[in-house]
Amino acid sequence: MSNSPESADETQIRQIIHEWRDALCARDLDRLMQYYSPNVVFFDAVPPHVHRGAGAYRRTWENMFAFLPAHLGSEVRDLDITVSGDLAAMHCLQRLINADTHEAATCGWVRVSVTYQRTDGQWRVIHEHVSVPFDPATSQAVFIREP
Amino acid sequence: MSNSPESADETQIRQIIHEWRDALCARDLDRLMQYYSPNVVFFDAVPPHVHRGAGAYRRTWENMFAFLPAHLGSEVRDLDITVSGDLAAMHCLQRLINADTHEAATCGWVRVSVTYQRTDGQWRVIHEHVSVPFDPATSQAVFIREP
Repeated sequence: MSNSPESADETQIRQIIHEWRDALCARDLDRLMQYYSPNVVFFDAVPPHVHRGAGAYRRTWENMFAFLPAHLGSEVRDLDITVSGDLAAMHCLQRLINADTHEAATCGWVRVSVTYQRTDGQWRVIHEHVSVPFDPATSQAVFIREP
Repeated sequence: MSNSPESADETQIRQIIHEWRDALCARDLDRLMQYYSPNVVFFDAVPPHVHRGAGAYRRTWENMFAFLPAHLGSEVRDLDITVSGDLAAMHCLQRLINADTHEAATCGWVRVSVTYQRTDGQWRVIHEHVSVPFDPATSQAVFIREP
């Protein structure tokens, strides 16, 4: 992250990231989806290799909720935001946790890259890429326990 | 992709993507690295989960060349480019091939997301994320054979 003072646009993106997390932890998908373009292209950590459109993105969370702890939390590390014009790019490490025990939910830390586009004054996600690496010798996913 | 006419900036990004491929297939890392910021953050398909800086990025290709066919080719599908101000975002599917046999090299298609930033009139990659998904039941990487 640069040491320059944060722009108003960066502050907006940071706010959206916070609100996204709050909406997810509240399992409020209507609130979550307000930050997504109808045409979002999503590369998820698990198959299929691409989801196209906000409806498909939403269904990934609907399907995921059964596997998540009742009291859900989210942690972010190494957050980096770059904004210019009507485009913003973010990358970070993120993990879902059991907010009661602070233990990792799902596979632990994942790498997240997000592109936001501002249309009619509203920033929305047009692309999201979530993954863990794999070991080329075994083809096993390599989970990120302590980044 | 939108149907609107391509902007000069989009044309530049498309040109860089072509030149990147030509430099890679020529194994010319000096030429390849001219498109990278010194501070690029790289999430590769294989561990470690993050590489920081152009030197670390370059070494991933140096280490990879021993495993690649002598006559290297690269294919791109579903390329999408968005540009605003001094920021550009690209995502696509990409695979390396044996240019003689047209067979896949490495693991086949990978998902690629790249962020470019223009500084002093020159577009450079500030973030690159390459991955395949994994099967949550087996933790095995799920290779993308025919996207």
